[in-house]
Amino acid sequence: MLDGKPPGERIPILKMGEFLLVTIQVEMHDRLVMTLQDELTHQIVLHRARGVLIDISALEIVDSFIGRALGNIANMARILDAETVVVGMRPAVAITLIELGLRLEGVRTALNAEKGMALIRRRLGQTGDLDGPRA
Amino acid sequence: MLDGKPPGERIPILKMGEFLLVTIQVEMHDRLVMTLQDELTHQIVLHRARGVLIDISALEIVDSFIGRALGNIANMARILDAETVVVGMRPAVAITLIELGLRLEGVRTALNAEKGMALIRRRLGQTGDLDGPRA
Repeated sequence: MLDGKPPGERIPILKMGEFLLVTIQVEMHDRLVMTLQDELTHQIVLHRARGVLIDISALEIVDSFIGRALGNIANMARILDAETVVVGMRPAVAITLIELGLRLEGVRTALNAEKGMALIRRRLGQTGDLDGPRA
Repeated sequence: MLDGKPPGERIPILKMGEFLLVTIQVEMHDRLVMTLQDELTHQIVLHRARGVLIDISALEIVDSFIGRALGNIANMARILDAETVVVGMRPAVAITLIELGLRLEGVRTALNAEKGMALIRRRLGQTGDLDGPRA
């Protein structure tokens, strides 16, 4: 289905146990975000994934467009019963976000992928079912 | 150190337990390969990683340049006592590789990241120490 697209037209989603892992390396644009949302929601259901890790360590800028895209993905995942954690944010990105007045609402963050996984595991362990307090 | 480079100038390396995970999404060129080799070897030593997973599911072409780069990375990792597995190769890429007469020598492959991890774990478990038969 996705063959024939040049590199950068698709962001790989890796399954790691009950997690899905996405590393964003290329500039996000409308169609790429749509494709990612499509595939990610599809794979959450397919693999019954409980957590989504989005690594943004390659990104030097997170603007309102990307911020909104991350928030949308987190919300979509949540209603499919999966928790999203954005990991690997650079210090400069955090500074810029606040300077721009962006809050990344609805998006959880962790320092790196390992801590992100631990965060999701803790939440899964604590509540047994993630949609308790958030549903 | 790496700030100031545009997206695509750096391939993120994620630490996952004793593994390092790299997903290649952008077109590889000389400097990017050099940077990846530098950072990966550095991180193998820093984190005492035992395995490196390289996901190429986003690549539609693996030519002799990329094939050689993957082989070099695998060899560098091996002398640092880490096993490299290339995962997520598309069927069309496998066909093209063979048609081009490329063999990806010295590079282990697995269908996906999970199977790649299992492969490395098996090898770690079997020999206790990876450099037994290969040293």
